[in-house]
Parts: sequence; C-alpha cells; structure tokens
Amino acid sequence: MAAVPRLGEFERIRRFFAPLAGAGALGLLDDAAVFPGPPGQELVITTDAIVEGVHFLPADPADLVARKLLRVNLSDLAAMGAAPLGYLLTTALPPTRGEDWLAAFAAGLAADQREFGIALLGGDSVATPGPASFSMTAIGTIAAGTALRRSGAAIGDEIYVSGTIGDAALGLKVLQGALAGLTAAERDALAGRYRLPQPRLALGAALHGFAHALIDVSDGLVADLGHICETSGVAAAIEAERVPLSSAARQALSADPSLLPLVLTGGDDYELLFAAPPAAAEPLAALSGALGLPVTRIGRIGAGSGVLVRDGAGREIELASAGFQHF
Amino acid sequence: MAAVPRLGEFERIRRFFAPLAGAGALGLLDDAAVFPGPPGQELVITTDAIVEGVHFLPADPADLVARKLLRVNLSDLAAMGAAPLGYLLTTALPPTRGEDWLAAFAAGLAADQREFGIALLGGDSVATPGPASFSMTAIGTIAAGTALRRSGAAIGDEIYVSGTIGDAALGLKVLQGALAGLTAAERDALAGRYRLPQPRLALGAALHGFAHALIDVSDGLVADLGHICETSGVAAAIEAERVPLSSAARQALSADPSLLPLVLTGGDDYELLFAAPPAAAEPLAALSGALGLPVTRIGRIGAGSGVLVRDGAGREIELASAGFQHF
Repeated sequence: MAAVPRLGEFERIRRFFAPLAGAGALGLLDDAAVFPGPPGQELVITTDAIVEGVHFLPADPADLVARKLLRVNLSDLAAMGAAPLGYLLTTALPPTRGEDWLAAFAAGLAADQREFGIALLGGDSVATPGPASFSMTAIGTIAAGTALRRSGAAIGDEIYVSGTIGDAALGLKVLQGALAGLTAAERDALAGRYRLPQPRLALGAALHGFAHALIDVSDGLVADLGHICETSGVAAAIEAERVPLSSAARQALSADPSLLPLVLTGGDDYELLFAAPPAAAEPLAALSGALGLPVTRIGRIGAGSGVLVRDGAGREIELASAGFQHF
Repeated sequence: MAAVPRLGEFERIRRFFAPLAGAGALGLLDDAAVFPGPPGQELVITTDAIVEGVHFLPADPADLVARKLLRVNLSDLAAMGAAPLGYLLTTALPPTRGEDWLAAFAAGLAADQREFGIALLGGDSVATPGPASFSMTAIGTIAAGTALRRSGAAIGDEIYVSGTIGDAALGLKVLQGALAGLTAAERDALAGRYRLPQPRLALGAALHGFAHALIDVSDGLVADLGHICETSGVAAAIEAERVPLSSAARQALSADPSLLPLVLTGGDDYELLFAAPPAAAEPLAALSGALGLPVTRIGRIGAGSGVLVRDGAGREIELASAGFQHF
C-alpha cells in the first residue's frame, strides 16, 4: 500500500504541540518536564505509550511487557538525572486479554516496583476494539536546579555512553528468528536486552556536575546524539570502533559486518548518552567503577551541526537512517 | 455475540492494581492521587483515556474531542478541590488521521488552555493500527491537607449536586438521532453538554471546609453516589424529583417519562456531587450565588449501604443499572 506522506514525530511536535507548551515543558525538547516540588526539590514528569504490534509483539509475556513499559519511562527520568517516585498507568485492553494476562502484567509491575522502590499512584482502565495499548506517566524528584538536559553540550566536550550499544536491536532480530549462527546464550542475552531494558538511574542521578548534556538511547545512538546536537547547536563526531559492544554483539558483527549500521542506529538500548568536558574524565572513570557500569568515551562535540560516524581509518560511515522513525 | 464474563473495572482495580498502590494513591479509590508539592502545597495528579468508537465517535470534530479529553481530566482535579497546573498528552493515531485532524485537535487544546490557564507539559506520540486513542495526565495543586475525597461522607450529611443532571446522556441520544420531538435549540443544548463538559473547578476549589466527601459525575449520578457510599461506609437516599434538570431535559422527560432512569444513571455530566453537613446549607447557597452555578440538595446520607432513589410519593424507583459499565 502506498503510504500517504506523513510528518515525522518531531515535525508533529514542533508544529502542533510545541506552541502549547508551558514553562516546565522545556519546549518539549527533553525527555521529561520539570516543575516545582517540595522544598529544595523539583518534580520531573514523563509519559510513554506502547501499542501491541508496534512496540511489543502479541506473544510477548505480559510481565515483560509491563516491566519494559515501566523501565522505558524510568529511563526518561534517568535521562534528566531524577530519582523515581511513582507512576500512573492507563490500560486499553481488547476483550481477548483476560484475567490471566492482566494478572501476569500486574505481577511484572510488582516485581519492578520492588526493584526500583516505586509505587502505583493512579490510572485508568478502558476497553478498546483495537490492539492492547498502554500509557504510563512516571514522576520523579530531583534537587532543584540540577536537572540535566539535552541542550547543554559545548564544543570540545567528549561524548560518553554507558553499558553496551546495539544489543536491543540485535535482540529484536533474534526474536524475529534471525542471527541463528549465535549460541543460545548469546541469543538469549540479546533478546533479554530488547525485552527488559535497565534504566540507568544511579548513573543519571550522579551526572550532575560532570555532564553538560544527557539523553537516553531510545531512538538509536546516532539519532539520540543528533537530538543533543540539535538542541545544543553543535556537531558530533564518533568513532564506530569505540562504541562499546557486548560479546554477543561482537560475535554477531564478526559473523556479519553488515549489521554495523543496525548497531549504530537501532533503538531501545536505554543506555545513557552524554557530553562532558575533558576534565570530567577522571571523576567519570571513578563513578563508572563505583557503579560497576562501563562508561565509554566514543567521540567529541565540535562546531557545526549533525553527527559524523567514522570507521577505524577515519573515513565517514554512511548511514541510511539515523534511527527509529516514529511514523 | 455471547460475551465472555469479564471483571468490572472496579473489581479489576481491586484485584490487580490496588495491591500496587503507594501512599499518595489513596488506595486508588479517588479521582486523583495526592503527593507532596511546593511549600504548603500538595500536587494532585490524575489520568484518563479515550478511545475512538468507545468514548467518542469517529465523526466527532477533532477540536471537541481534544477539549472533552482535557475537561474530563480537569473534572477529576475539580473533584479533589485542586487547581489545574498543566497536562501531559499521549496520542496514538492511525494513518487515517492526518495533519488537518491533528491541527484541529491542537486548536481545541489551545482554546481550552486559554480558558483554564494551563499549558502542555509533555507527552508522547505513537502510531497505532487500531482506533485513535488518547490518554492525558493532568496535574494540579492544592493547599496541603485540603484535598477532598470520596470517603468522608457522614450519617446525617445532605447530598448536593451542581448544575443539571442527565443532559449528557440525553445529548448522546440526540447525536444518535433520537429525541426528534425536541426543538433544535434543545437538541443542541443537550448535545453540547455531551460534547463539551464544564469542569466545576471554582466550585471544587471552594468546597474545602464545607463538604465531607466529593466526586464528579462521570459514571452517572447513582453510580457515583454509590462510590461515595462504598468508600464512606454509608447509605444514601435521593429524591428523583429534586434532581436538577435543564429545560431541555425536562422537555425530553415530559415527552417520554421512561427516560428517567437514563437521566439518573447516565454518565458524562461532570457535575460535582458531594455530601455536606446541614450547617453547610447557608454558606453553600452563598457560594452557589457567588459562582452563578446552581447547587441543589437532592437527598441525605444514612446508615447502611447502597443508594436508594425515591419518587415523589416516596416509593423506590428500581434502576436496572446504576451507571456506565466500563467493560
């Protein structure tokens, strides 16, 4: 079917919703909104939605669907440096999703509530004739004035990313039946990263004072770095060989080097990507050690616009698409 | 089609979600959650979703869909006595909803932002293969400790309702082609009440100190009074003849008295329904006058459980259903 030309998500936001944005909305350019909270604190609020067949598969286990939804929202809080407080949940369920499914969904939420020390604050339950859909609003707190944004990157900053990149996109391929040459353990590791992201809350909360700009990798490494560049008015250059990979991802890439663009542009990793001045290198290494979470320098901020990706020989790697297209 | 037996919304909430609720969630028994805010204030947060074909009709004008969604959420804030601050919006749109529709939707939001002095704080935009769906989270503020809840009704309290009741349910009938005997002006008045509810924010904010328990009429007068009774551990008796009606509703009822149960149990009026001690009668009359909004005493709280509706001769009116069934 020929697609009707559609506006991208960012163009939709810019044209229709940005004119509606209030003071705490930060121009709708960030992962979350910030507004006054208890004494000395600000509240950070974000919302994300998922739709069956678009963001999760009909056969996905209900508890993992719930936990991924929660974690994606928590990752938006992590990307501002906030600590999570609670969440509101809206479920829109078709008649085919019965009590057993809902019980497993709630059990997934309960498990993650314990893990992250948060609780349900409210919600809505509606019926739908369409696919199962969920939306969640997460609320966090942060010391007043310390929220990190996408827009603070400065020329000369170094670019860092936490954990490993590309696992989630490769994990989706595994779940679709590809990458059969990997071991079962490697396939499971990748699929697990797609299904159950790990919001980097401790790292995000510790970056105030070190990082100039922060985002989580949801649309893809190159696309999300592009968001930092656009809002900061700078350019970025990264070296593909520095991008941290898991052993499973390295294995997949060595078997099929053509997967590199997917690794660099695939979404859903939910690692933190940030720009920090060179002086931050030592404290960041100490922080990484204290958290037991790798933090890897992958490139540098410069003048201009856009994101350049270089291979080991310094040549530009051409990427057909920077990341996940919402429409 | 034979329906699979399904849990009602309240049973779903009780079984699956109430065990997840945190301190500010008020046991998920109220219209919104309450948590600490700026000095001297608390924040009130609520979320509501609407689905095309379930909560609005495919041909409904986009600006009215947007405004109704916003107002339904604001009504939940009014039902706690809170003043609105802002909102987050999630849109899940199928490819058939193009730019024109979205532009009209945003224009509706802009109009209501001006009317209610609020702004957009954030949101999410996703694609869906299903019907257009929207969810909104609204945030408000209230002086600390003054939030009104459903659970405070006491034996001997009088029951009040604002505005007029039943218009929205009759308005939906008008939009479905019924009530052809009414004048065009009457039909428009009723349809307008269905399409564009008026959240009673000023009344809600003024009820602290007068009302013991407060709710908005979304599920239907009898059902929502039932929610007050359940959470307060009391019974209620109301007199059908005291329930305030618009002239259009009176006209519809006089032409077809069998519409009375619909008036008493139809949802979507978004008036405020509350219980207040007899001593509040005089200040409430003054408040009603100051706001230019009728506030009518319709019955009394007593011992026991459930809601009894009496006719002019004191006989019980049997109602097949108390109100809107969510599933």
